[in-house]
Amino acid sequence: HCDLAGWWENDLGSKMQVYKVDSDGNFSGEYHTAVSSAAKPIQPSPLVGSQHLDEDGQCTFGFTVNWKKFSDSTAVFVGQCFREDNGKEVLKTSWLLREKVNSLPNDWKATR
Amino acid sequence: HCDLAGWWENDLGSKMQVYKVDSDGNFSGEYHTAVSSAAKPIQPSPLVGSQHLDEDGQCTFGFTVNWKKFSDSTAVFVGQCFREDNGKEVLKTSWLLREKVNSLPNDWKATR
Amino acid sequence: HCDLAGWWENDLGSKMQVYKVDSDGNFSGEYHTAVSSAAKPIQPSPLVGSQHLDEDGQCTFGFTVNWKKFSDSTAVFVGQCFREDNGKEVLKTSWLLREKVNSLPNDWKATR
Amino acid sequence: HCDLAGWWENDLGSKMQVYKVDSDGNFSGEYHTAVSSAAKPIQPSPLVGSQHLDEDGQCTFGFTVNWKKFSDSTAVFVGQCFREDNGKEVLKTSWLLREKVNSLPNDWKATR
Repeated sequence: HCDLAGWWENDLGSKMQVYKVDSDGNFSGEYHTAVSSAAKPIQPSPLVGSQHLDEDGQCTFGFTVNWKKFSDSTAVFVGQCFREDNGKEVLKTSWLLREKVNSLPNDWKATR
Repeated sequence: HCDLAGWWENDLGSKMQVYKVDSDGNFSGEYHTAVSSAAKPIQPSPLVGSQHLDEDGQCTFGFTVNWKKFSDSTAVFVGQCFREDNGKEVLKTSWLLREKVNSLPNDWKATR
Repeated sequence: HCDLAGWWENDLGSKMQVYKVDSDGNFSGEYHTAVSSAAKPIQPSPLVGSQHLDEDGQCTFGFTVNWKKFSDSTAVFVGQCFREDNGKEVLKTSWLLREKVNSLPNDWKATR
Repeated sequence: HCDLAGWWENDLGSKMQVYKVDSDGNFSGEYHTAVSSAAKPIQPSPLVGSQHLDEDGQCTFGFTVNWKKFSDSTAVFVGQCFREDNGKEVLKTSWLLREKVNSLPNDWKATR
């Protein structure tokens, strides 16, 4: 099956390391983002998530990145593993980035 | 600060229980969705996530729900705690639902 | 069928006026937003869009709002008309707001 | 400035033709999608939209595609023009696809 454990890199140059995936599909790891909208310098940030353990190797998964080391934002990613014709594994993901806003009337603009 | 531990209910009637939040902000829990696009009957589903531990009680957070008990989909939620004028805590969230597709050319339609 | 012509108001207090819908389903109008992330004062902004002309009155539609009078952003809305049990028409919409960024490497953060 | 008039093609093989852009930035055109979740055969579909007319050629824009010729869905796209170092113009866009659902309780799953 698809195993997320290891290092992955995206088109923007961000990298993530997923540690061991347990028998329930849960995992933790570290996200090294290449881009940021925060004022402080970027730091590697902890992630936790969960994946399916389908036998066909095309599982869906999701994870949360907590940017607490340099911002008060949180990001979530959701996606699926694919095995390309050349045998290479590719992750296709979508994400949402939540920035902290100071009050409910500003909630409309908090998520990109 | 904002403590996600406990029961929460959304406008659609879905409920979630967050167990204890640890000192890093990590948590697990169970999501009882009221809505589904899957063929099989809904079942309570495990969630894992992470929250900030801001002192002002308006933390951002995110979590992943693994629907493995009745589907091959995964959902992620990201949001923020707010304390309303009446003292009630409210969570404002956005979500993405990833459905499994059988090949890369169908990736475009996998996420709602 | 669902006729978008007229005034509509959303939960945030934003209002829009849709002028006559033509026989192809095209329409124009004016959007009076209650919220903004721009520095300049809000002004009523032109919109153009298109709707289906289904006989059951539950059409889908979309429109673009050009905020050129006070910003270099553009928003799009997509949604559907519903008639509630009490006969009242309700629009349910989702939106994306595109802000101008100065170069391609910043494209990742341009849309909320 | 950025002029959307002409033919554009995306990574999925979809093509669109934008006719003349008027002095307000409004335009119409035709979208030839390469992908569809509808049962009926794909047909070229009308689009209407609006763009900024910034002098720096990096305008934001949005448009609505009405798929009425083969489905009851509507799509909206929002994006920005960029001029790459080699002089080539590139459009970066995000989109939402609204499918028709039969009642309000299904609204949550109508948009991808």
